[in-house]
Amino acid sequence: MFKAIVSAATLRDALDSVSVLVDECKIRLNEEGLAIRAVDPANVGMVDLSLDASAFESYEADGGVIGVNLSRLEEVAGMAGAGDLVHLTLDEETRKLNIRIDGLSYTLALIDPDSIRQEPDIPDLDLPANIVLEGAHLDRGIKAADMVSDHIRLRVDGTEETFHIEAEGDTDDVDLSLPPADLIAIEAGAADSLFSLDYLKDMNKAIPSDAEVTVELGEEFPVKLHYQIAEGMGDITYMLAPRIQSD
Amino acid sequence: MFKAIVSAATLRDALDSVSVLVDECKIRLNEEGLAIRAVDPANVGMVDLSLDASAFESYEADGGVIGVNLSRLEEVAGMAGAGDLVHLTLDEETRKLNIRIDGLSYTLALIDPDSIRQEPDIPDLDLPANIVLEGAHLDRGIKAADMVSDHIRLRVDGTEETFHIEAEGDTDDVDLSLPPADLIAIEAGAADSLFSLDYLKDMNKAIPSDAEVTVELGEEFPVKLHYQIAEGMGDITYMLAPRIQSD
Amino acid sequence: MFKAIVSAATLRDALDSVSVLVDECKIRLNEEGLAIRAVDPANVGMVDLSLDASAFESYEADGGVIGVNLSRLEEVAGMAGAGDLVHLTLDEETRKLNIRIDGLSYTLALIDPDSIRQEPDIPDLDLPANIVLEGAHLDRGIKAADMVSDHIRLRVDGTEETFHIEAEGDTDDVDLSLPPADLIAIEAGAADSLFSLDYLKDMNKAIPSDAEVTVELGEEFPVKLHYQIAEGMGDITYMLAPRIQSD
Repeated sequence: MFKAIVSAATLRDALDSVSVLVDECKIRLNEEGLAIRAVDPANVGMVDLSLDASAFESYEADGGVIGVNLSRLEEVAGMAGAGDLVHLTLDEETRKLNIRIDGLSYTLALIDPDSIRQEPDIPDLDLPANIVLEGAHLDRGIKAADMVSDHIRLRVDGTEETFHIEAEGDTDDVDLSLPPADLIAIEAGAADSLFSLDYLKDMNKAIPSDAEVTVELGEEFPVKLHYQIAEGMGDITYMLAPRIQSD
Repeated sequence: MFKAIVSAATLRDALDSVSVLVDECKIRLNEEGLAIRAVDPANVGMVDLSLDASAFESYEADGGVIGVNLSRLEEVAGMAGAGDLVHLTLDEETRKLNIRIDGLSYTLALIDPDSIRQEPDIPDLDLPANIVLEGAHLDRGIKAADMVSDHIRLRVDGTEETFHIEAEGDTDDVDLSLPPADLIAIEAGAADSLFSLDYLKDMNKAIPSDAEVTVELGEEFPVKLHYQIAEGMGDITYMLAPRIQSD
Repeated sequence: MFKAIVSAATLRDALDSVSVLVDECKIRLNEEGLAIRAVDPANVGMVDLSLDASAFESYEADGGVIGVNLSRLEEVAGMAGAGDLVHLTLDEETRKLNIRIDGLSYTLALIDPDSIRQEPDIPDLDLPANIVLEGAHLDRGIKAADMVSDHIRLRVDGTEETFHIEAEGDTDDVDLSLPPADLIAIEAGAADSLFSLDYLKDMNKAIPSDAEVTVELGEEFPVKLHYQIAEGMGDITYMLAPRIQSD
């Protein structure tokens, strides 16, 4: 059983965070809210989304799992105006999701959850550095790195408590240096890892520029990016595997 | 003889309504105003436009017919600012149309009207259902249908006096249901027909979202869409042949 | 030695004026300001830019020459917000230009100036007609000409002191007529020349629509276009060779 009403903005923020990594996903319709975990086909990037029942105008569910085509669901959510409410009702018999937006009724065929890539276990890493910054700063560093390379280096200078977003190209280099004054918070620690820029660009697409993003970082370890949506009632965590540094 | 001055906005609204169906057309320069009738090459969609002399700042004509390349004429009209006036003067000798917009003079070579597809006879159908709705609602139904199918079904539920814009896809379905409260007017009657979405999308491009659109509908009959431009001094009627429903 | 701070807007206006003609250029870092002269590979269009030291927030240079990849430098300047300052510092040893924008540091590899096409001599022509007009009017004439031809004719009607921007297509013609009332100034003189529209379109891209553009024109002579940036502290002159008129 699943029946919920949610603002179009919240639904879109939630779906966007997952659709940048995968085309299809399982949605767990728990009593206390929605949950999605997914990993990209190359096993490099993961997302863990939870959207609390309180993020909805109304929410009723009893623990089922549905499989959805995300781009299709996003397209339907895109038919809603900014302030519109989206009514979601699962038809258990036909295995279809009815989506209703102000007179418009869309019947979405679901996907067999067993045909969808397994949900990843997201390791509980204890990473030494912890940086909190505005999405806009992360976006600026990613755009700058993208001018010169396919890789991006995230690094903490422990002495100066400064977070560096860097990239080294064939001829040109880029370094966005974020001292404590430009950060919301920093717990410096040994942290220096290289990542594929493509993945970080995709994740960055979903992160609102005014979001507070927590970056957990180590030395040649995965990075965790965490931010909230729906006024704190939705949590999104990305995890991205490092590239081996070759110098 | 033809000599007229018209606002760029009115000229563009008029040309747009025809150019969505055909690239070239005949324009009848009647004493009481302009008239265009055209049918697309597949004989599926027709347009009937009349623009009264009162829609012009000044208008003089004596009944000639000219053939024009619509995309070219639209491109010239596109050089005008929103409030600009467009001066049109036919040079009978050279068979060219002079278009003057605030210092800019464009000389447009006309096309021999005999080389243009014949104007269609638009049948005078008496269709049982008559719905008046905002262009924005029609647009919403067409966009929704386009997510799932190449066809669109227009239907009136006589009991509930509700207008339905529907589409049935391979897996997903769409239904925009417009009860009397969402319509400007409805005269319910037996009405249920299927249409090619491509044609309706093209026609919809020309219909302003704040226009009052009158939809005349029957059972497996053509649909007529009627709206006005130029503050009621211009009338546009589209007619679209139905597709045979296969169920 | 070169060390300067400049507003992102001024830097972009300056770079744009050159990058519409060439991909790489030499920049002369004179004591009194920057200077760039460049000619396109076909030797048809030239640009002469000078940006006075007073256009900078701070400026120090001692006469060196650097070679730069313009599109790369423009991309970096594009990372700056409207009000941002750009800090430029030449590292003489590594032959790299450090570009700093609010925490972001970009290290740009320079190009050997000897590998860049030689700077043109810009002939000091004394052209008989001199027209001053708004960039927006020039833009309108160029857009109109582009609808019908690959060439554009610039002409002065000495009797009426009117500047004409014209184009003759296979079937259609265009004439933007600018009488003294639509010009900032005109010194009429024998002036009628044909130009390649592609070059003029490129130059026009860099000219702000509110710039005062001085057009110097003769009979089958090159045209000179001159405008200022940075509140008069930057001067840009384009010169474009004529096409031979074939009628």
